[in-house]
Amino acid sequence: MQMSSQFQNAFEQYLEGQPFHFQPRGLYEPIGYIMGLGGKRLRPVLVLMGYHLFRDDYEKALPLAMAAEIFHNFTLVHDDIMDQAPLRRGKPTVHHQYGLNAGILSGDAMLIYAYEFLRRVENQAALSALLQAFNRVAVEVCEGQQYDIDFEKRQDVSIPEYLRMIELKTAALIGGSLELGAIAAGAAGREVENLAGFGRNIGIAFQLQDDILDTFGEAEKVGKKTGGDIVQNKKTFLILKALEIAGPEDRKALARHMSSSTDNEAEKIEAVTAILRSLNIPTLAAEVMESYREQAFNHLQAVQAPEGRKEELRQLALSLMQRQA
Amino acid sequence: MQMSSQFQNAFEQYLEGQPFHFQPRGLYEPIGYIMGLGGKRLRPVLVLMGYHLFRDDYEKALPLAMAAEIFHNFTLVHDDIMDQAPLRRGKPTVHHQYGLNAGILSGDAMLIYAYEFLRRVENQAALSALLQAFNRVAVEVCEGQQYDIDFEKRQDVSIPEYLRMIELKTAALIGGSLELGAIAAGAAGREVENLAGFGRNIGIAFQLQDDILDTFGEAEKVGKKTGGDIVQNKKTFLILKALEIAGPEDRKALARHMSSSTDNEAEKIEAVTAILRSLNIPTLAAEVMESYREQAFNHLQAVQAPEGRKEELRQLALSLMQRQA
Repeated sequence: MQMSSQFQNAFEQYLEGQPFHFQPRGLYEPIGYIMGLGGKRLRPVLVLMGYHLFRDDYEKALPLAMAAEIFHNFTLVHDDIMDQAPLRRGKPTVHHQYGLNAGILSGDAMLIYAYEFLRRVENQAALSALLQAFNRVAVEVCEGQQYDIDFEKRQDVSIPEYLRMIELKTAALIGGSLELGAIAAGAAGREVENLAGFGRNIGIAFQLQDDILDTFGEAEKVGKKTGGDIVQNKKTFLILKALEIAGPEDRKALARHMSSSTDNEAEKIEAVTAILRSLNIPTLAAEVMESYREQAFNHLQAVQAPEGRKEELRQLALSLMQRQA
Repeated sequence: MQMSSQFQNAFEQYLEGQPFHFQPRGLYEPIGYIMGLGGKRLRPVLVLMGYHLFRDDYEKALPLAMAAEIFHNFTLVHDDIMDQAPLRRGKPTVHHQYGLNAGILSGDAMLIYAYEFLRRVENQAALSALLQAFNRVAVEVCEGQQYDIDFEKRQDVSIPEYLRMIELKTAALIGGSLELGAIAAGAAGREVENLAGFGRNIGIAFQLQDDILDTFGEAEKVGKKTGGDIVQNKKTFLILKALEIAGPEDRKALARHMSSSTDNEAEKIEAVTAILRSLNIPTLAAEVMESYREQAFNHLQAVQAPEGRKEELRQLALSLMQRQA
């Protein structure tokens, strides 16, 4: 069994031992609900892999893995309220299932519990450094969400601004999870930085890959209908890049499509996709994505840790991009 | 100048040095707004007083005082959303001023910043204990808010349940603020516990005093119209006690009043107040409030610290209850 699968299993088992069966139920039931919806458990696996690069006894990092997963789920609960999303992993979102107030308050409690699990880390000498890294990442995730909200209303978002937004909103916690594991394992500052750099760049690459697949992926492989971003007028990397390089006519057509809702979704998706293809956007986007992946692997290369364990991390990253593709 | 005024000034000055002038403004402007609305700064003053019982250099506890104040303001922002409150300290609430999403997200960021200020405490050896106490109190505050929400829909809330709710929602952070200060000052476990016990009991006494004054206070002294709790059908200690001891007729009348909205507020207030008076509720409530105050002062008495500094704390508690009365 691959280490990442072993870590995922170890985490699921740890999670089962934390059923959140406390009173009042109105507060804790939504926490058990969202934590039980599953998912790849990517962030806790990364915490454990970050730790395991430097130490064998990865079980000791399980509370920290839990902190990362609860934090991630807290962001899902509150983001789903802000995005008015009805579904999450095919099930009703917390605020749809339990109401707005339960969504807000249970999310708050989850954020607090994330800190409580972080506190329970075995290596107490690392607590201040862990807390500092966690706080920085947590604030970045909030900032990224705010930029994402702001960008919906702006027509002049630049590509660097977009890349910065996805770095904060998504990639910071990918890098942060590895970083927390490495700090808890007592890794040196340079190793922690390189590992965080790996995570941050691979996180940006993941998101760019998401953008590409949402429009150009094969629906069966991606596991969801393609074109969702286009229907929702999302200013993804693809659209921003197209607006940057398009001639006046294409730019006008794109802007018109992206500022209107439509009754004929299929037609809109086809029209926008055709413009993107004519501008060679799939290739350009893949190139940028690959440059982030390369930067990520360069950072990983520089980490002083056993080659075999670094290779596990590289394989996990590749398989995640493969699974999506 | 009294120490509590000196501490309040020191805190205000520290707060002015933290203007939250970061980007994106959509995230940070609401934080500056709510933190700037003022108030008595009771929780940070209590952090500093808890510290000052055991050490002179209270400036070192200012980051911790900030943690308590940001946390308190975070709860105000999210509670105001849940309570659909339009005003806070005479100004629009954050979500009324900036929108629901800003209220949720800025509140989240405030909770994270509370932990970041906590981390900056000078006495790093106490970090784990501080974090543990802070997490426990923070979760209790969430649980108290959930019970408060639950009780609105329930007709069978018992007095012990109500007292537990106000202990969690309000008194836990009063006690917790003193506790944080004492832990940071390196106080022994027994002193910390007694001080927390003082804070928790005095916090319950404060809330009971609030309940009494909202109905029986003199409007000019209290600084707001009396009878608000009755108009809102709030199941305060007064109502719960009345329902407990009333004969069938009064109980029926009370239940009818408390389950209906009315066009004639003055009439409703007068009718309910008359029943409460006829059942001797003002005296009974004052007795319970005084018993908590007495328990609080017994705990304070037991704290091993200079008598003069304990007296400052006692005077602060008395003056706060005086100012309200």
